[in-house]
Amino acid sequence: MIHLDNIGAHILQRLEEYNVRHIFGVAGDYILNFFKMIEDSNIKLICTCDEQSAGFAADAYARINGIGVVCVTYGVGGFKVVNSTAQAYAERSPLMVISGAPGVKERSYQLHHTIKGFDTQFNVFKNITISSVILDDPKRAIMEFDDALLSCINYKRPVYVELPRDMVYAPIGDYHRIERRYVSNENALLEALQEIKCIVDMAKRPVIIAGEEIQRFKLESKLKELVEKINIPVASTILSKSVINEYHPLYLGVYEGAIGHEDVREYVESSDCIIIIGALLSDITLGIFTAKLDQNKCINITSEGLSIRYHKYENIRLDDFIDGLINTLDRKEYSLVQKCPIEEFVAKKEKITINRLFKCINSLLKYNHALVVDAGDALFGSADLIIQKGTIFMSCAYYSSLGFAIPASLGIQLANPKLRPIVLVGDGSFQMTGMEVSTIAKYNLNPIVIILNNKGYTTERIMLDGPFNDLNEWRYELIPNIINSGKGFIVNTEEEFYNAILDAEAYDGLSIINVVLDKDDKSEALKRMAEHLAKRVRDTKDIL
Amino acid sequence: MIHLDNIGAHILQRLEEYNVRHIFGVAGDYILNFFKMIEDSNIKLICTCDEQSAGFAADAYARINGIGVVCVTYGVGGFKVVNSTAQAYAERSPLMVISGAPGVKERSYQLHHTIKGFDTQFNVFKNITISSVILDDPKRAIMEFDDALLSCINYKRPVYVELPRDMVYAPIGDYHRIERRYVSNENALLEALQEIKCIVDMAKRPVIIAGEEIQRFKLESKLKELVEKINIPVASTILSKSVINEYHPLYLGVYEGAIGHEDVREYVESSDCIIIIGALLSDITLGIFTAKLDQNKCINITSEGLSIRYHKYENIRLDDFIDGLINTLDRKEYSLVQKCPIEEFVAKKEKITINRLFKCINSLLKYNHALVVDAGDALFGSADLIIQKGTIFMSCAYYSSLGFAIPASLGIQLANPKLRPIVLVGDGSFQMTGMEVSTIAKYNLNPIVIILNNKGYTTERIMLDGPFNDLNEWRYELIPNIINSGKGFIVNTEEEFYNAILDAEAYDGLSIINVVLDKDDKSEALKRMAEHLAKRVRDTKDIL
Repeated sequence: MIHLDNIGAHILQRLEEYNVRHIFGVAGDYILNFFKMIEDSNIKLICTCDEQSAGFAADAYARINGIGVVCVTYGVGGFKVVNSTAQAYAERSPLMVISGAPGVKERSYQLHHTIKGFDTQFNVFKNITISSVILDDPKRAIMEFDDALLSCINYKRPVYVELPRDMVYAPIGDYHRIERRYVSNENALLEALQEIKCIVDMAKRPVIIAGEEIQRFKLESKLKELVEKINIPVASTILSKSVINEYHPLYLGVYEGAIGHEDVREYVESSDCIIIIGALLSDITLGIFTAKLDQNKCINITSEGLSIRYHKYENIRLDDFIDGLINTLDRKEYSLVQKCPIEEFVAKKEKITINRLFKCINSLLKYNHALVVDAGDALFGSADLIIQKGTIFMSCAYYSSLGFAIPASLGIQLANPKLRPIVLVGDGSFQMTGMEVSTIAKYNLNPIVIILNNKGYTTERIMLDGPFNDLNEWRYELIPNIINSGKGFIVNTEEEFYNAILDAEAYDGLSIINVVLDKDDKSEALKRMAEHLAKRVRDTKDIL
Repeated sequence: MIHLDNIGAHILQRLEEYNVRHIFGVAGDYILNFFKMIEDSNIKLICTCDEQSAGFAADAYARINGIGVVCVTYGVGGFKVVNSTAQAYAERSPLMVISGAPGVKERSYQLHHTIKGFDTQFNVFKNITISSVILDDPKRAIMEFDDALLSCINYKRPVYVELPRDMVYAPIGDYHRIERRYVSNENALLEALQEIKCIVDMAKRPVIIAGEEIQRFKLESKLKELVEKINIPVASTILSKSVINEYHPLYLGVYEGAIGHEDVREYVESSDCIIIIGALLSDITLGIFTAKLDQNKCINITSEGLSIRYHKYENIRLDDFIDGLINTLDRKEYSLVQKCPIEEFVAKKEKITINRLFKCINSLLKYNHALVVDAGDALFGSADLIIQKGTIFMSCAYYSSLGFAIPASLGIQLANPKLRPIVLVGDGSFQMTGMEVSTIAKYNLNPIVIILNNKGYTTERIMLDGPFNDLNEWRYELIPNIINSGKGFIVNTEEEFYNAILDAEAYDGLSIINVVLDKDDKSEALKRMAEHLAKRVRDTKDIL
């Protein structure tokens, strides 16, 4: 039974207010008390095989739900979610890490799972979160927790909450609830909007690049309103793909410099006014330094600041900014982007290639699918897929931690049970975290897992090859036998792949499709990408 | 081809001098150049499925070889070995982490895999290593690397070396090789030895507790010399088990307070002079606070300092200390410890229990076996096994990160190919890292993996049970079908287990034995332990 006047119960109540219905984790003695409390609450515990995967699942859950929580034991649990937390920081995902810890009263002894001192784990997490707190004082605990929670929600970055095991049931007194909301500087906003109006009015071919923060801050419908009101074409980045229905007549495609499609690159780079909203500009989104965005023509806003050409404004919220643009800018008159209808896919009896595989998936994608792709060619190849309204696309395109997609599909389907994940994952990624299909089966979920089996790290082969890029070949289609659940397929031809997808669609459970590809097969996008990446690896070998 | 005058080649040459013949890791673009260089060297690259396992394998390798190296890419690689590195720190293992990183010349851009800044990963590792360096300046790089290497060797703690990818081939100039050796303060040593001689001369029943640092610093033969010279009985801790041949007439057994055997506890705790050498005294080694060691009777030395009763000496090396004892102390006259001969095991047709399983293993252990046990009942139950000369016992008994044993067996067999690992692992541990059997098969190793399949986290069930302690059941014996290698067994009775072990012994390859146990079956040691652990979990639930 939960006492609403103790620290643990307060945490759960606050999380419920933010629509947290699942917490991901692995049991361990320093967190057992709190796990028991979660079991007795309205929030469901989702226990994975390994902590790292719980972190990935919670990250994906966070991207859809607005916040996601991973809960682990001290040391052996906390240190295993460092990588997932670092990813959440890099890709702006509102992930909360709750770590059990030795009781405050136990801390005079050397206890198992501890490292240098009792603050070591806290010191590590301070580097990869926006706020880290140790709830070791009942008087301050509620205020500190609420503060971390609001930082997570407002900044869309991970936070770390350490909960000593003797504090779970510690009683709390009265407290003032923090309801902080970050507000824009109205004068700064007004000045910036006036300046932008002049620029856009003068511009002949303005364009918008909409980034992943639109999704994180749930601004998709505002973006659509903006685009339709002012009638300016919009591109996404590889990290924000599906930020707008990709059938939208004003949607251009994914912009990623010379790596992406030439017509998108040409449109964006020849524009005289590029409005970038909520996009992380990195080597990946900028097409391995092939992007040519003239700062003189750029208006660039993120949650951290606005820059117009070479000057900056601070304290302007993304939502206020978009609202301001909607109210300020006039409608432009341009013809709409021509869209090619999706080709009907006719499966042949031939050996399947990665390009044909993506064409096949493109023809089969439905409104209720969530396309989840891992790093590598699963990601690069999928840039050309057309994502319609209602469908979501998720990847860790910037941080690129192999092994994200399968645990992510667990988080996605629990966050929104109406979505059915289609998971595209390389064999290297699968060998890292793929056995979490066991967890997926345990909770009766039904993703379709497609393994691009090309016997190695294909993206790296192109940069610099050696035996270190080779992988043992697994018979992935037999994994349902191991976990006593699901259906497995092995496919070699287009026809077999097409039929396997149809079979999987009709089956209400986990499906695993092992797609046997040639070792040197690669997508068109990867071919374009590889040349640039390889050049950079060679460039760094100065004296070779 | 390797140029001996560049940073990468220097690193490999120095590692070879310390007998590093294998480096563990996973490929990634920021480390590809260096991987290629390793491939062209005398050192063999061992590529695992996931980075964490590479860290565990290198830790185990380090414990046998004197140093072990894990080599990974930036961010997604580095952050995945944080847990393995924390374990190496906690358990004093000389692990070197080499992480690739963006080139020094690339660092003005936002690059993939990076988090807050380019120093984030370095700042994280500073908390869990004894020395962390970034080799970003060719002039200083060699000195900094050598310094980190010597810290690793001398202190038996992990170090972190960050190698920007444009520094791998950077030329180095002349340099002075550091050959620092930590020396004892001779006066302090002399005074301490005189004091100890008085105490031991007066003592009626002195006893030695030999800890894991004896193994880390390769002092096993010195310890044996000491024990035989002065004729004092010796106990190990659960962390240092096998530090001396367990058939030795002066070996008492594992001391772990009330958790361990009563006769060992009685002997140690009634002693009037307890000499503790190189042992980490934690809740685990002290039997969950049941140990009663009177500080007034203790002489306690570790690599970090010596204390006699309530006063301390600094700068005394472990090896000098043991040499000093050998030369100073006189022979005591006590009767030897009585050893029961190992019972012959007669397998019955009955359902196998965990206690009978350990008895069976005890009867089958041979001189060339390395017993590797994971945390949980695999560890607690094995405290009673008798490890003979030539056999080693390895666990992460203090840090207790589930999933260590299987990757560790990879590291052990590569460090010493004469050893054949017998791996004891719980089902929870196996589901974390067990698929590294694929890596084991890739390198043609032949461990015998025994899975204690009791459908959950048994150690935790005893403390506080709930559905979070349940695991999906896997058909582990079918995993050889997935990885196209090895032999699988499923056993329910004693006879089946006995025969499976004999079959596995005769088979020169990977064997996986799925031992189906009752859900609530547990070893005698775990039963003793559980009561004390459960009490502590309950004690922390103050107001429940």
